[in-house]
Amino acid sequence: MASESGKLWGGRFVGAVDPIMEKFNASIAYDRHLWEVDVQGSKAYSRGLEKAGLLTKAEMDQILHGLDKVAEEWAQGTFKLNSNDEDIHTANERRLKELIGATAGKLHTGRSRNDQVVTDLRLWMRQTCSTLSGLLWELIRTMVDRAEAERDVLFPGYTHLQRAQPIRWSHWILSHAVALTRDSERLLEVRKRINVLPLGSGAIAGNPLGVDRELLRAELNFGAITLNSMDATSERDFVAEFLFWASLCMTHLSRMAEDLILYCTKEFSFVQLSDAYSTGSSLMPQKKNPDSLELIRSKAGRVFGREDKEAVFEVSDTMSAVLQVATGVISTLQMPFRQAHEASGKAVFMAETKGVALNQLSLQELQTISPLFSGDVICVWDYGHSVEQYGALGGTARSSVDWQIRQVRALLQAQQA
Amino acid sequence: MASESGKLWGGRFVGAVDPIMEKFNASIAYDRHLWEVDVQGSKAYSRGLEKAGLLTKAEMDQILHGLDKVAEEWAQGTFKLNSNDEDIHTANERRLKELIGATAGKLHTGRSRNDQVVTDLRLWMRQTCSTLSGLLWELIRTMVDRAEAERDVLFPGYTHLQRAQPIRWSHWILSHAVALTRDSERLLEVRKRINVLPLGSGAIAGNPLGVDRELLRAELNFGAITLNSMDATSERDFVAEFLFWASLCMTHLSRMAEDLILYCTKEFSFVQLSDAYSTGSSLMPQKKNPDSLELIRSKAGRVFGREDKEAVFEVSDTMSAVLQVATGVISTLQMPFRQAHEASGKAVFMAETKGVALNQLSLQELQTISPLFSGDVICVWDYGHSVEQYGALGGTARSSVDWQIRQVRALLQAQQA
Amino acid sequence: MASESGKLWGGRFVGAVDPIMEKFNASIAYDRHLWEVDVQGSKAYSRGLEKAGLLTKAEMDQILHGLDKVAEEWAQGTFKLNSNDEDIHTANERRLKELIGATAGKLHTGRSRNDQVVTDLRLWMRQTCSTLSGLLWELIRTMVDRAEAERDVLFPGYTHLQRAQPIRWSHWILSHAVALTRDSERLLEVRKRINVLPLGSGAIAGNPLGVDRELLRAELNFGAITLNSMDATSERDFVAEFLFWASLCMTHLSRMAEDLILYCTKEFSFVQLSDAYSTGSSLMPQKKNPDSLELIRSKAGRVFGREDKEAVFEVSDTMSAVLQVATGVISTLQMPFRQAHEASGKAVFMAETKGVALNQLSLQELQTISPLFSGDVICVWDYGHSVEQYGALGGTARSSVDWQIRQVRALLQAQQA
Amino acid sequence: MASESGKLWGGRFVGAVDPIMEKFNASIAYDRHLWEVDVQGSKAYSRGLEKAGLLTKAEMDQILHGLDKVAEEWAQGTFKLNSNDEDIHTANERRLKELIGATAGKLHTGRSRNDQVVTDLRLWMRQTCSTLSGLLWELIRTMVDRAEAERDVLFPGYTHLQRAQPIRWSHWILSHAVALTRDSERLLEVRKRINVLPLGSGAIAGNPLGVDRELLRAELNFGAITLNSMDATSERDFVAEFLFWASLCMTHLSRMAEDLILYCTKEFSFVQLSDAYSTGSSLMPQKKNPDSLELIRSKAGRVFGREDKEAVFEVSDTMSAVLQVATGVISTLQMPFRQAHEASGKAVFMAETKGVALNQLSLQELQTISPLFSGDVICVWDYGHSVEQYGALGGTARSSVDWQIRQVRALLQAQQA
Repeated sequence: MASESGKLWGGRFVGAVDPIMEKFNASIAYDRHLWEVDVQGSKAYSRGLEKAGLLTKAEMDQILHGLDKVAEEWAQGTFKLNSNDEDIHTANERRLKELIGATAGKLHTGRSRNDQVVTDLRLWMRQTCSTLSGLLWELIRTMVDRAEAERDVLFPGYTHLQRAQPIRWSHWILSHAVALTRDSERLLEVRKRINVLPLGSGAIAGNPLGVDRELLRAELNFGAITLNSMDATSERDFVAEFLFWASLCMTHLSRMAEDLILYCTKEFSFVQLSDAYSTGSSLMPQKKNPDSLELIRSKAGRVFGREDKEAVFEVSDTMSAVLQVATGVISTLQMPFRQAHEASGKAVFMAETKGVALNQLSLQELQTISPLFSGDVICVWDYGHSVEQYGALGGTARSSVDWQIRQVRALLQAQQA
Repeated sequence: MASESGKLWGGRFVGAVDPIMEKFNASIAYDRHLWEVDVQGSKAYSRGLEKAGLLTKAEMDQILHGLDKVAEEWAQGTFKLNSNDEDIHTANERRLKELIGATAGKLHTGRSRNDQVVTDLRLWMRQTCSTLSGLLWELIRTMVDRAEAERDVLFPGYTHLQRAQPIRWSHWILSHAVALTRDSERLLEVRKRINVLPLGSGAIAGNPLGVDRELLRAELNFGAITLNSMDATSERDFVAEFLFWASLCMTHLSRMAEDLILYCTKEFSFVQLSDAYSTGSSLMPQKKNPDSLELIRSKAGRVFGREDKEAVFEVSDTMSAVLQVATGVISTLQMPFRQAHEASGKAVFMAETKGVALNQLSLQELQTISPLFSGDVICVWDYGHSVEQYGALGGTARSSVDWQIRQVRALLQAQQA
Repeated sequence: MASESGKLWGGRFVGAVDPIMEKFNASIAYDRHLWEVDVQGSKAYSRGLEKAGLLTKAEMDQILHGLDKVAEEWAQGTFKLNSNDEDIHTANERRLKELIGATAGKLHTGRSRNDQVVTDLRLWMRQTCSTLSGLLWELIRTMVDRAEAERDVLFPGYTHLQRAQPIRWSHWILSHAVALTRDSERLLEVRKRINVLPLGSGAIAGNPLGVDRELLRAELNFGAITLNSMDATSERDFVAEFLFWASLCMTHLSRMAEDLILYCTKEFSFVQLSDAYSTGSSLMPQKKNPDSLELIRSKAGRVFGREDKEAVFEVSDTMSAVLQVATGVISTLQMPFRQAHEASGKAVFMAETKGVALNQLSLQELQTISPLFSGDVICVWDYGHSVEQYGALGGTARSSVDWQIRQVRALLQAQQA
Repeated sequence: MASESGKLWGGRFVGAVDPIMEKFNASIAYDRHLWEVDVQGSKAYSRGLEKAGLLTKAEMDQILHGLDKVAEEWAQGTFKLNSNDEDIHTANERRLKELIGATAGKLHTGRSRNDQVVTDLRLWMRQTCSTLSGLLWELIRTMVDRAEAERDVLFPGYTHLQRAQPIRWSHWILSHAVALTRDSERLLEVRKRINVLPLGSGAIAGNPLGVDRELLRAELNFGAITLNSMDATSERDFVAEFLFWASLCMTHLSRMAEDLILYCTKEFSFVQLSDAYSTGSSLMPQKKNPDSLELIRSKAGRVFGREDKEAVFEVSDTMSAVLQVATGVISTLQMPFRQAHEASGKAVFMAETKGVALNQLSLQELQTISPLFSGDVICVWDYGHSVEQYGALGGTARSSVDWQIRQVRALLQAQQA
């Protein structure tokens, strides 16, 4: 009847499965990222089956051995996908069967595809969170190191892009570093909710074969097991949470990039990007475009509002690249006006050390700091003096900046412990 | 000159401030929610000023007394806004000055508008999180109570909207309740990050007058103080986090509503909405529309993707209403087919209690459960038997459902402690 | 039974309709905007009913007269809403009944609430599109006037925020004006699709009483009638289109605002905002914040991603205010460096007029243009010469800028015709 | 100096360009779609250069010939990308140089990368719009054919998922087809704005070499040329418009899919999906999942909110697949209950033909239509009679459905003309 209807309505396709539909449905293009965790999950499940008496020890060993071989092929780049491999799970199954024969089929006793998909995704995302957390802290560390070494550089702080109050350069760096520490805290919380085992939930009603989920949890090193099988197989809160985390983190990196783009314009000229992070223009050779910063900013747009599983893979790659580029940019940035501004900062420090007011320093003393000091040091005083007023915790005075550095370093150490 | 240019280009407005612009800029329409926390924040700051020697004890007392009077006017609905009150902060300031005269001006010594805006917002959102958390747990409790009382009702579980496996009705309720427990966990984390004092950050560089931020923190009962004044006055991560929390929670409520909309169609006919939560149609009197459920679903769309401060007020109101309506819906829902399905559940329980197989129960025994049992009890067995297979933790067997109920109740108690 | 369930599950509410639910459902807070079109639609429908023989002439006259009275009350601000008025439609109906008695009820013969809601919305949005179109063209006209008068002002063009090539100031203005002409084109297209009559579609299946939809169309001056009653009552494409239109238009205004925010920083100092469009800061009196521009930019964020009917009202108000503020800003903007830059532009023009190369102008000739010309006129030549190279259509040479002005003026005239 | 800073701050990379940054910047992975239009654009530009006297005839011929060769390599799959090919433009340039030597360099005289990128994108999207328009009309045609052939099938119309009024099956199909005709109209409007030539705008200020943009327009068959060079190189309104168009079209397809998912549940059982568009489940063999419909619905989510250039390619592919799958689904759909419902439709038609009331038909007459007619034909009458009431234009009566079919067919023909 289908074929008749087909003819009747001029349908484009009749019989078997529409090939466009098949291609449409396939996810292997992006979920091959999961090859390693898929093997890991299957190994744990075969141990669970053996303990439940559903596999003999010999069968389990055969499966474990076969899965190791599959993993080896992926690792060595010799795994060959064929055109019927819709996703990573069918690909690995198909290969396992080729390698060990019919026993391979027993691996799926009581395990649903839903079980497998979500377990693999959680395993992979748990690892990704750890990697990104490391890269994030590497960036924070670079920022704090720089903040500490350049505490004496002063420059204008802006609100509404209008000059507002002089601040320490380190105060600016720390304002961004502190935002990133919140991202780190949030990433840990997301990871905690990712780190829950769904395996053993079946299609929807649960696992009917008495598999010990606590054993599976221990095998795969999860922190807890999911409470309800329907919820476990369908919920993707952790994907939404991860994508939101990435959005917020990208907002912070994007704002920092925006400030730096401005600071390296000819008009502002506070900082200069390393050649490694800028490009020229063929039509306008005098230009040096802040490409790295613009990319960071534009990638933010691509992270926002993604909602699907594919997004997880792409967003992870983006975050990894962005964090590394940001670390590179910060670590190689130069400050052309550093010398001049630094002078005033050092004078403040000298006055403090000597226990005198700034304007009691002699010109000779000042010139030991910098030859830039001459008769009209008034404006330098204003600048330097202004900054030191803000001594309450969190402010831009040197004592407060030092306190901030200690606070962030403490977080750094806590994270490494 | 402005007026000449104005004339030259045919501008619509010249001189003073464009009234459209003023209206455009005003936020009093929504930030009046903040009246109480604004007074609270100002009282704490005046204590900080007194301790720093910037106010005398008498001045502080005068200010505190004036602020109490302002609060009283708001509480009694006698506070009169005038047309120059751009926002809640200017409104309260203006009124304080009317009440106590020039001393009112000293309250702003070293405090910036940024300081005040963000402190008020954090105070208000902290309170809102507590309120919403209470409503959320009230809903979870209602669901668990119902899940416990109706454990013996069985019905089809669906995937892809096709019947998949029989499950317990309680298993369905718990799948949604468990999702809400994650929302509760997340709300606590958001609240923790809201509960950080920004006051004492000034415009950007910090507070220049030696105000003791630790004293302010203690006065306002915050958990910590912000680390960097630039970050403190500009970051709104906690707003984004709160809105994301609301989106995710609404996703869960929306999915539950979607299931229930289907379950109360004529075609499914599993449940029946209370009249309190449905409406009729004038053109089609036979209809009973599931308005409450549709509103929950449609409100979800309005929560997603909001990004501004105004959104916080609206989203809070929406969440509050939605949680209460959902609680009402769940607590008054009826199950027309309950009697029939419950019979099979009870038979399973009787067999278990007697330690016999289901098919060993006699017809007499069965008829003590329900007169519905007659000769053809086979399909009831199938249904009941099927459900009991899924005994692994998280599954739909009675033992597992009981375990889930205990787990969620434990979370409930932990939260109340 | 509801009450028992209610007690059993600790429901918060039992019996009648939950008041939170009622409030939740009410739309009168925002749809009162529709009072005028609601009366308009009802008047047309009563004429349709009379023609179909469903109302007598006398009944129709009574209804028309009553509706005029309702409209009068709204116009004079004497219409009193009462607490049962859920939306504008029930409010107007209720009042009509009070005014003319039972005949009022006949107005709804064969008309569904869906019919009425969507007809009103289309009538209102049609009017809004016309209003916004007028404001948009007022802004474009202001920009073109300014572009024409200041063709000789040169300044740096930027890419990646780095100075790229000198351009005419008018070229910059026109780049934004041209974008707005596309918005105008799109707004017309949206209006065309709004301008289609849905009335006469009933609840879903159509109108069963032979009402002449062509008569209704003519009465309400719609351009066409909807083709399918199910589609007509449920589709809101035109709302999505309008909101998308607003988003895109706001993107353009936001980008222009962003450029101007930069151009009025101390570092760029190209332009100066009128006091009418900027504000000061109490803590930092030297500052002049570009509030108008920042509001334009921030309002963009509030327009994006709105999806509901309420959004239409809010977004319309926002667009109206933003277009007027933008017109005000542009018409009162001053250019501090205008004198200097204008000199080079005028020299180019003098050379052209005299038919000589720029560097053949004598110093005396140049000084008739501006006393700023002295020995080192080379860089001015470079600037002026550079600009004149770009003579292809669309470029920054004076001839091309003149061509652009003519093109946009032609669009202006076409629109007014 | 960079290297010192690098060491100082522990930077991850110093010197040359950071490889992560390069990879980050590369777009070749997705913009290879543009190979054909890139060659097309370059061929036109070389003709422009020759006409402007910037290339000799011989040089132009050499370039044209080289470009043809490049295109041939792409078409035959022999083009080899190398690792420095950042994007399609550099790849084609590099290859052209290898093929024809130094003359290749002259092709870029006065053409900026911006010029080239946006011209290519417009050329490609213009083609894509045409392709998608064809697929869209193929779907509409299939729907109208089916609506025409099955006008006598009646079934319940729903509002709020509750049965509302009986309608014709064709009325439901047409409600979706009519929505798609609006999408077609919008696609034409988007295409019109895509079909505008930007080439000849240079980097920002325009083309300095007198290239005739009108000639370029004619060569590339664009409908108009852009007005302002700054706007031309930076605006991407047409990308936003295309993505919005796709979102709205997907909303329509997604809603149709949602209805069908419901109609093919066991509970509704109105229609049955062809095997070509559904899949089974290994754990639950009784199931037939409506995968094609769920994919259509889920793809909608992936189209919404995309904003970047990469999205254009992915969204185009998605739209193309979705339109074809939808056509396939509709053309092969079966209606299990067709026989029964059709009977009542045919009876209505018989009564009309004979000029009698439905209830005047004798049982014998009715049984010539279907053996299903027996004593209790009342409810069939009600159903059939109900549907025929809605005779106003746009309603569900047969005459109105016929009118709708004629209207949509007229649009179909207008589009093919």
